[in-house]
Amino acid sequence: MGLNSMKLSNRVNEMKYSPIRKLATYADAARSKGLRVLGLNIGQPDIETPSLFFDAVRNFDGTVLKYSESRGEKNLLDSFILYYKDLGMDFQHNNLLVTNGGSEGLYFTLYAICNPGDEVIVPEPFYTNYSSFTDIAGCKVTPITTYGEDGFHLPSKEKFKEVINEKTRAILISNPSNPTGVVYTREEIEMLAELCIEHDLYLISDEVYREFVYDGLEFFSPLEIESISQRVILIDSISKRYSACGARIGLVASKNTSIIDAIMKMAQARLCVPTLEQLGAAALYHTPQSYFDSVKEEYQARRDVLFEGLSAIPDVQVKKPTGAFYMIIGLPISSAEDFCRWMLEEFSYKYTTIMMAPAEGFYSTKGLGANEVRLSYCINIQDLKLAVEILELALKEYMKSH
Amino acid sequence: MGLNSMKLSNRVNEMKYSPIRKLATYADAARSKGLRVLGLNIGQPDIETPSLFFDAVRNFDGTVLKYSESRGEKNLLDSFILYYKDLGMDFQHNNLLVTNGGSEGLYFTLYAICNPGDEVIVPEPFYTNYSSFTDIAGCKVTPITTYGEDGFHLPSKEKFKEVINEKTRAILISNPSNPTGVVYTREEIEMLAELCIEHDLYLISDEVYREFVYDGLEFFSPLEIESISQRVILIDSISKRYSACGARIGLVASKNTSIIDAIMKMAQARLCVPTLEQLGAAALYHTPQSYFDSVKEEYQARRDVLFEGLSAIPDVQVKKPTGAFYMIIGLPISSAEDFCRWMLEEFSYKYTTIMMAPAEGFYSTKGLGANEVRLSYCINIQDLKLAVEILELALKEYMKSH
Repeated sequence: MGLNSMKLSNRVNEMKYSPIRKLATYADAARSKGLRVLGLNIGQPDIETPSLFFDAVRNFDGTVLKYSESRGEKNLLDSFILYYKDLGMDFQHNNLLVTNGGSEGLYFTLYAICNPGDEVIVPEPFYTNYSSFTDIAGCKVTPITTYGEDGFHLPSKEKFKEVINEKTRAILISNPSNPTGVVYTREEIEMLAELCIEHDLYLISDEVYREFVYDGLEFFSPLEIESISQRVILIDSISKRYSACGARIGLVASKNTSIIDAIMKMAQARLCVPTLEQLGAAALYHTPQSYFDSVKEEYQARRDVLFEGLSAIPDVQVKKPTGAFYMIIGLPISSAEDFCRWMLEEFSYKYTTIMMAPAEGFYSTKGLGANEVRLSYCINIQDLKLAVEILELALKEYMKSH
Repeated sequence: MGLNSMKLSNRVNEMKYSPIRKLATYADAARSKGLRVLGLNIGQPDIETPSLFFDAVRNFDGTVLKYSESRGEKNLLDSFILYYKDLGMDFQHNNLLVTNGGSEGLYFTLYAICNPGDEVIVPEPFYTNYSSFTDIAGCKVTPITTYGEDGFHLPSKEKFKEVINEKTRAILISNPSNPTGVVYTREEIEMLAELCIEHDLYLISDEVYREFVYDGLEFFSPLEIESISQRVILIDSISKRYSACGARIGLVASKNTSIIDAIMKMAQARLCVPTLEQLGAAALYHTPQSYFDSVKEEYQARRDVLFEGLSAIPDVQVKKPTGAFYMIIGLPISSAEDFCRWMLEEFSYKYTTIMMAPAEGFYSTKGLGANEVRLSYCINIQDLKLAVEILELALKEYMKSH
C-alpha cells in the first residue's frame, strides 16, 4: 500500500478552517503592498491588560515551573469565588474548574452532556467555534434563527419547541452575544429556563462578555434563577473582561457538581492549565472598578461611532446592539465574502483598507448571512471613523462593477 | 421531568479518574497526621527550570496580552526548528504546531487520523492518559503486552501482526517510555517502520523524554527513517526536557503536512496556546549543554540508587531501565493498590511514608499489573534511599498481616 492511501478521519475532513481567519492571507498580501489593514474582523481588544497580571507573573519566586492542580490553582479558584460573590452568586471550589480559555470549558461541557449524535440548540448567527466544538464532541448544532430586524433577540417559545426533540440535550447561548451584540432580557432568559425545565435540558450560558453591556441595561444571568440552578452550566473567561486573551484562562462553573466532577476526568487527562497564567489571572480580581467603567465607556463610545456611521450609509441594514463589541450588518450586495476579499485585494483609501468577517460562517442554516458581515469594534475611534468612510466608498465602487 | 433525569453522556461516565492521582486523598490524610510523604508516584521533576524561561517572561514588554497564532508564535516555532536541526532533523513552520502540552498534540493527532471505533496499537504498560485520549477521541487502544523480564522491550513482529486488523490506524509509542523506562533499540524502531509500511499505519512517536537516555545508549527516532517520513507523527513537549511541566507547551510535528493542516482546524477552534509561556519556551533553546549533562547525570545516579536498593529487597522484581525517570517493579503481594493505600494509611518510618502509583491502571488488559507499581525518581538521592528503606520495611510488615 502506498502513501496515497494515508487517510485522515472523515470527521477532521469535514471540519472547516476558521471563517474569521479565512481572509488572513489576503490581508497579509495587502500589508505587503504597504497598506494599513484595519482589523474589524476579530475580537482582539486593544485595551491594556491590567498591570496586576504582569506584576503577579513577574513576582513568581519559584525555581521549578511545576504542574498545577487539574481543577485549577487554589488562589485562582478563590479569586473567581470572590468575583462571583460580588455578583451575588455563591460558588465553592467543587463548583468550579479552570480551563484553557472558555473554549476548553465549552468543549468539556459538550462532551460530558452529549452522546454522539445528540443535539444542542443554538440561536444563530452564533460564534463559529461553537460548531467546531460540537463537531469535535460528535454532537450537532440545531440552529434557531434570529434576525437583524429584531435586534437578534430570541424567537418565541413555540419556535424553540418546534426544534426540540428526543436528542436535544441543551440550549447554548452567548450572552451578551458574540457575534450579534444582543443582550437577552430577563424575560428571554426566563423563557429559556421554562423550556429547560419542561424538556429536561441543560442551559449552557457563555457569559464571557458579561461586563460589556451598554445604555444602562442590566445583565441577567440564568444563574439567578434558583429553579434551574442544577441545569445551568456557566462558561466564563478572563480574555475579554481584562483584555487578557493570550492568557487562555477560562472557567466552567455549575451548581450541579456532578457535571463538574465528570469534567474533572477530562481535566485530569490534560493534567493542568499553565501555572504562571493562573497566578496572573488570580491577581486580576483586584482590578479597580474604574478600569471597568472606563473600558465600558470607551466601547460604548465606539459602538455609537460605528453605529451612527453605518446608519448613514445607504442600504446598510444595522440595528444598535447593546452588548459585547460586535455587530452584524446587512450589505446591499449578494456575496459578503467576495466583497471582503475584493476590499483586501482591490480597494484602498488613504493607503488603508479594512478586514471584516463574512457572516455566512456564523450561520448553520445554508444560505443565511450571505450578504452580512460581522464587525468588531476593538480599534480606536479615529480608526473606526476611517473604517466607516472606507466601507462607504468601497461599497459604491464595488456595486458599480458587480 | 425532574432533576434525577439530568444525564451525563455515556462516554464521560465510562471514563476513569486518573489512577496516578487516585491515592491523593490518602496522601493528604497522611500529611495531616504530620507525616512526610515521599512522592514516587508522579513525574514532576524537582530539577530547576532554566532561568532563561522566567527571564523571557519577565521581559515581556507589551501592554496587551493578545492572542497568539493558532500554529504557535513564530519565535517559538523557530526555536523548535533550531532544536531539531541540532538533532539532524529538518522541519519548516508548516511541519509544526504548538499545543497545550504533549497531551493536546496527542489528542489532536488521534482525532485527525481515527474515525470513531478505529484502533491504535500501544505497547502496555502505557502512560494512562493514552487511554483517556483514545476514549475522548472515540477510538480504542489495542494493547500489546510487554514484560518486565524482557526489560519491557517490544514483542516480535508476528505478535504485532496478530493484533493488526482493518480498523488499525496507528502504532503509538512512548520512547523513552513512561512508565517503563525502556528505550527502544534501532532494530525495534525499524521493525515498527516495516509494520507501518506493510499495513499502511501511522507511527505516533511520543519523545518527550528524548534527552533522558542513560548508560551511553543512543536514542533512535523513527523520524530518522526516510521511508516512513510521511507516516511519523512526533509528539513533543518542553515539560520534562527543561523541567517546565507547568508551562504546558507541547508540539506536534510531521513531515506529512496534510496531517498538520488537518490538526490546524482544531487548533483554530481553541484559538491559541498562552502567549507568555511561548515566549519563555522560545528562550529555552539557549539552555547550555551543561544543563542537560548535569540533569542526565543526576537522573542516572538516582536510577542507580533506586535500582540497586530495590534489587536488594527479597522478591522484588526489577530490571534496570535505561531511560526517562520511571520504572515498573513487581512486588510479592497480590494487590499493589491495596498495598499503596495501606502504606499511606498505616505505615511510616522516621515519620515518613511513600506514595507509589499502582501499575494496574497502566495496562488495558484486565488482570495485568495487579502486583506492580510504577516508581518515578524525581526526588533527591537521600530521599530515594530512605524510600527504598521504607518500602522494604513496609513490605515485611504488610506481608505479615496480609
